[in-house]
Amino acid sequence: MIGRAAVLNKFNAPLELKSFEAPASLEPGAALVRVTMAGICGTDVHLWRGELPVQLPIILGHETAGVIAGLGPGLERDWSGQPLRVGDRVTWTSTISCGRCFYCAEKKQPTRCPHRRAYGIGYPSTDAPHFLGGYADLHFLRPGTNIFRIPETLSTEAVIGAGCALITAIHGLERTRIDWQDTVVIQGAGPVGIAAAAVARHSGAGKVIVIGAPAARLEMARQFGADHVINIDELKSAEERVAAVRALTGGYGADAVIECVGHPSAIAEGWEMCRDGAKYCVLGHYCNAGSIQLNPHVITRKQLQVIGSWSSEPRHMRMALDFLDRFRAQFPFERMVSHRFDLDQANEALQTTANWAATKCVFVPGRQA
Amino acid sequence: MIGRAAVLNKFNAPLELKSFEAPASLEPGAALVRVTMAGICGTDVHLWRGELPVQLPIILGHETAGVIAGLGPGLERDWSGQPLRVGDRVTWTSTISCGRCFYCAEKKQPTRCPHRRAYGIGYPSTDAPHFLGGYADLHFLRPGTNIFRIPETLSTEAVIGAGCALITAIHGLERTRIDWQDTVVIQGAGPVGIAAAAVARHSGAGKVIVIGAPAARLEMARQFGADHVINIDELKSAEERVAAVRALTGGYGADAVIECVGHPSAIAEGWEMCRDGAKYCVLGHYCNAGSIQLNPHVITRKQLQVIGSWSSEPRHMRMALDFLDRFRAQFPFERMVSHRFDLDQANEALQTTANWAATKCVFVPGRQA
Amino acid sequence: MIGRAAVLNKFNAPLELKSFEAPASLEPGAALVRVTMAGICGTDVHLWRGELPVQLPIILGHETAGVIAGLGPGLERDWSGQPLRVGDRVTWTSTISCGRCFYCAEKKQPTRCPHRRAYGIGYPSTDAPHFLGGYADLHFLRPGTNIFRIPETLSTEAVIGAGCALITAIHGLERTRIDWQDTVVIQGAGPVGIAAAAVARHSGAGKVIVIGAPAARLEMARQFGADHVINIDELKSAEERVAAVRALTGGYGADAVIECVGHPSAIAEGWEMCRDGAKYCVLGHYCNAGSIQLNPHVITRKQLQVIGSWSSEPRHMRMALDFLDRFRAQFPFERMVSHRFDLDQANEALQTTANWAATKCVFVPGRQA
Amino acid sequence: MIGRAAVLNKFNAPLELKSFEAPASLEPGAALVRVTMAGICGTDVHLWRGELPVQLPIILGHETAGVIAGLGPGLERDWSGQPLRVGDRVTWTSTISCGRCFYCAEKKQPTRCPHRRAYGIGYPSTDAPHFLGGYADLHFLRPGTNIFRIPETLSTEAVIGAGCALITAIHGLERTRIDWQDTVVIQGAGPVGIAAAAVARHSGAGKVIVIGAPAARLEMARQFGADHVINIDELKSAEERVAAVRALTGGYGADAVIECVGHPSAIAEGWEMCRDGAKYCVLGHYCNAGSIQLNPHVITRKQLQVIGSWSSEPRHMRMALDFLDRFRAQFPFERMVSHRFDLDQANEALQTTANWAATKCVFVPGRQA
Repeated sequence: MIGRAAVLNKFNAPLELKSFEAPASLEPGAALVRVTMAGICGTDVHLWRGELPVQLPIILGHETAGVIAGLGPGLERDWSGQPLRVGDRVTWTSTISCGRCFYCAEKKQPTRCPHRRAYGIGYPSTDAPHFLGGYADLHFLRPGTNIFRIPETLSTEAVIGAGCALITAIHGLERTRIDWQDTVVIQGAGPVGIAAAAVARHSGAGKVIVIGAPAARLEMARQFGADHVINIDELKSAEERVAAVRALTGGYGADAVIECVGHPSAIAEGWEMCRDGAKYCVLGHYCNAGSIQLNPHVITRKQLQVIGSWSSEPRHMRMALDFLDRFRAQFPFERMVSHRFDLDQANEALQTTANWAATKCVFVPGRQA
Repeated sequence: MIGRAAVLNKFNAPLELKSFEAPASLEPGAALVRVTMAGICGTDVHLWRGELPVQLPIILGHETAGVIAGLGPGLERDWSGQPLRVGDRVTWTSTISCGRCFYCAEKKQPTRCPHRRAYGIGYPSTDAPHFLGGYADLHFLRPGTNIFRIPETLSTEAVIGAGCALITAIHGLERTRIDWQDTVVIQGAGPVGIAAAAVARHSGAGKVIVIGAPAARLEMARQFGADHVINIDELKSAEERVAAVRALTGGYGADAVIECVGHPSAIAEGWEMCRDGAKYCVLGHYCNAGSIQLNPHVITRKQLQVIGSWSSEPRHMRMALDFLDRFRAQFPFERMVSHRFDLDQANEALQTTANWAATKCVFVPGRQA
Repeated sequence: MIGRAAVLNKFNAPLELKSFEAPASLEPGAALVRVTMAGICGTDVHLWRGELPVQLPIILGHETAGVIAGLGPGLERDWSGQPLRVGDRVTWTSTISCGRCFYCAEKKQPTRCPHRRAYGIGYPSTDAPHFLGGYADLHFLRPGTNIFRIPETLSTEAVIGAGCALITAIHGLERTRIDWQDTVVIQGAGPVGIAAAAVARHSGAGKVIVIGAPAARLEMARQFGADHVINIDELKSAEERVAAVRALTGGYGADAVIECVGHPSAIAEGWEMCRDGAKYCVLGHYCNAGSIQLNPHVITRKQLQVIGSWSSEPRHMRMALDFLDRFRAQFPFERMVSHRFDLDQANEALQTTANWAATKCVFVPGRQA
Repeated sequence: MIGRAAVLNKFNAPLELKSFEAPASLEPGAALVRVTMAGICGTDVHLWRGELPVQLPIILGHETAGVIAGLGPGLERDWSGQPLRVGDRVTWTSTISCGRCFYCAEKKQPTRCPHRRAYGIGYPSTDAPHFLGGYADLHFLRPGTNIFRIPETLSTEAVIGAGCALITAIHGLERTRIDWQDTVVIQGAGPVGIAAAAVARHSGAGKVIVIGAPAARLEMARQFGADHVINIDELKSAEERVAAVRALTGGYGADAVIECVGHPSAIAEGWEMCRDGAKYCVLGHYCNAGSIQLNPHVITRKQLQVIGSWSSEPRHMRMALDFLDRFRAQFPFERMVSHRFDLDQANEALQTTANWAATKCVFVPGRQA
């Protein structure tokens, strides 16, 4: 079987549409999937620009869903133990942790497994089986991939609309452990921020405040659970925004603040939004955006807990799919998908994402332009 | 009754020995104590230099023990419910939280009670009852003070040798919650660092590593539980010290790092000493020592928990006295007391502390010089 | 001022309507409230029947709201720091913990404070100020009572409809700490069970299953968050009910089970409804209903956590009022109030509660019959 | 290679010494070990008596150490990543969890993995490779076995003297999470009880109280960390023992109680030894010893946490070996080994264990009688 893929050969240059031959036969535990939808994540823009240390060429795309076209011997069940068959609609985690190393087995930190490599980021497209990223007609799933059958009642749009933002937010909120009726501030109204608002809203938060821009994203944040929004185009200084949060929290500051911005300047501002004894989750710094002046005395004096959270585990994907399926009326993540592209429109798709012109761009391979 | 006190009238100037009249009668719930020993804390040096925002004149001293000279009506039991009588040997917490405010009652963060004022820091010596700091012959205990009878088997030297360093360390380790057999790094070999080593050693740490100087303090750290020490006079660069910690931790870094230094530069170095998923306690930044360049990406990528801990609660004093009494053979805190002074030697005492020439200076009022 | 009260003089006998004189002047910190609504709790039925060790005569009623008629000197703010004035609509916790004992101060278990006495249970009506229970025209609030001003947007019906069931459920769920998307089984569809369903639904549960009867209560449970209900009049054996839970949980059992029944036989059945590693909260055994055969091997083998939760703390009342006010559209607790009575109908009111004929009976003093 | 094994063919009958042929070649990931010491656990006595549902014939023994005689292809490192070579001294966990099932991957409860089978319990001796239990000259390690190289400074006697009792205790205490300076009661002075005393002592307990018999075991408990012991031959009633615990805990009861007895009657007694808000760990009920009358009201009223803990995970073995090696001076587990037997003395060895005549019996295959 032959399929197309949009290949990143050179940073800051247009992606190139190439054709590859899929493996004629599948090794034990592997699968071949026909891609039906692949999300474009903000990280893809960083990768495109060469801001992360990766080796080219690669096929981008680490948020993908499709239909099983072939199953290798012995691959009979998905991660949750559901039977798998050709024709099933599935998604999967972009990484595989080894399960046996110091971080996996001893410290229960599988997201820090040194053997993890991510589809769409860590595999060269030159070598067979080639199809190891989502911007393609086909996707090869290596043995051990954490595959999840998508429930019939759940749309592919919702799964990809939620994308890796939702599982990132679920992990971050899990590590933060908010208390019931807590006031939660979300810094940032991108996909992770909106997903974090939804998860906070559904985790028993009393009040959810989202800070960001532009207005359309804040409106989306409201639909996904924000009780209050603060527009950074209107409140332009950190002081004003901190004052706004204090006004919404009886003068004390929030019980928890989730940083989903990715710019180091958000941190000091966020600490000021915390009440004493609050929790602060550094969730948006997946990429290294450099250092900034910070005062550690604030952590001591305010008795803060500052919590990092990196990527997610397969069980967060399980929770995400359950959540999306059970609460789709309240949290309609399919609405996040604002722009659809075929593979030959890859550059336009990346550009649209880079411009913040969309809530979420996706590929629908074979789609009529 | 008349008593002497060493009064701080002016920053950076010699303390002045003054005499005050103690209250002729005690209000309900109050007590008067004849001071037998008062510790000099590093914070006192900061106060002396005017590095903390306090109003003068004050009587310094927030680590104090003495003998009850008088009890106001209704004061019949100590914090733990033990009967109190004139002549009892006691110590007390330097602060009183209100028990009813947002932080005390709702958020269970009594160390952040806005109504707290500390003996030896927050009370002017000009107003009766004057004796509200430890550098004095007498100490007045306001109604509501958390008083603890010292067990007969426990020496006053051990209580003051441990001082506020021990209760600070107990609180910090409690918030950090190390796991059994964890490797714990302590940055700093001052009183808090040594106390943190003792508490970590007694909390199930597998390996305790103390980093600091000079050699004499590191030797003391060994006596109090350090398995390994790293001398910053020998390993002068952060890189060398991080490498030394990694060499002691299978290349991964420590499970928990407790900062007991107070200089912002320790933070970035400490984060590098953490394994992924580790806990980092910012314990030494009671004073505001300013900002420094820090990279929040490290918190996300290494999935750290950075935990602040401020001062301590009365129950930590209870734990401290139990610990000192039960395990005095293993942790002989009385040995920390290296220099004794009468009140008229207050400047010499402060200078000796400031010079790092002592492990612990104390006042023994009325002592023959 | 003179007011009426329904007094319990003798177990199993009709309550007697009596008139008492309210205090002419109020001591510092005290208040006098004109009762506008008082809930009848299932515990009141147990008290009436003499199943709890109390001394008569008492005025029953520990879930009460009213309007401030008088404030003693110094009582200027409610528990949350809001200003208090005559005419304010308020509610309060039925007990006061001392804040200084071993359980309050050292072990942070204020619900186990030995000095707690409850309005409506622990005070004789014979002694002034008499009005220390809710079944009355007036209620005296002793100094130190935890008073909460009711937000303007929140109805008194919602507060009393939620009653002590809601704060009990909030405490129980807090101690149980369910994880996000957990499946939660609630055993029992009385007021505590329905409140527990609401709190579980709002705490991020993935699936809430309520087991009880009759059908009307299960319908109410559905309105308050149950995704599935199991009617014990239909599934009459424990085996059938356990099988039903397993069928709803992929064969494994629930992540958390909350017992809100009060009959010891529920426990063994509930343990069977747990998946391995689950949490089981014994919430319904406020009264001593005796012993039953239980197999401790089940706790070891299934690696259960069995968690007790007693009564509630003032901060749970704070959370409850916030929750009721913020989420009143989704959780309309005012609908729980099904029957209203004047004080002279006290026996009818108790009988209606005892018969399980109502979801919630309340007194509205002075109401036209 | 041919080796002997003591085979359990029939319950309550003498074990039979048989010879088997070891595999001529080893499959990838497998290993063959020459047994140097095999512990006899109390569970083996239960197995011998047919009190657990197992299929015969089996080779008993699930606490084993030996020297590597052969390594299958690809087996190059132990569980912790240390290189493995023929001649290395090793031990291993008796079970292998699958790592991918609902309990392993989703609920992080690998001890409840349904695919676990234990060496010495779950494998028939009739089928090759036969040597799947410790009472033998040789032991086959299946691919995936969690193998641990024993540090050079740690004796085999200490490892087997600690046996599965220590890892069981480590897991139980981990789940119980005692607080620093807690008073911990251990019910039972068998191997698990003594190990629990050691772990509690080394986890920051303030006071450790061990309850059991006979006097020799209590003396051993003192050596391993008990501050107080209560002899059940002297205090024969539960009431007396509860009173003794209360006398040692200021009248309140203990902060944590660890049940290491295995008889259901211990539970109600243990609950009475708990202070309100305490933790109670049901650790001794690995075998099903039946039901008993228990009152769930006690759990609610005392606000207990009753925690089950089943078996242990590989990381507990890692902790155990670290602990034994680092703290061997303070906790000399090699002294637990009181009786040594060759394989042809298997019945005598089991009988000695059953009679409680030994602290620990072990096999030393080939030992001169």
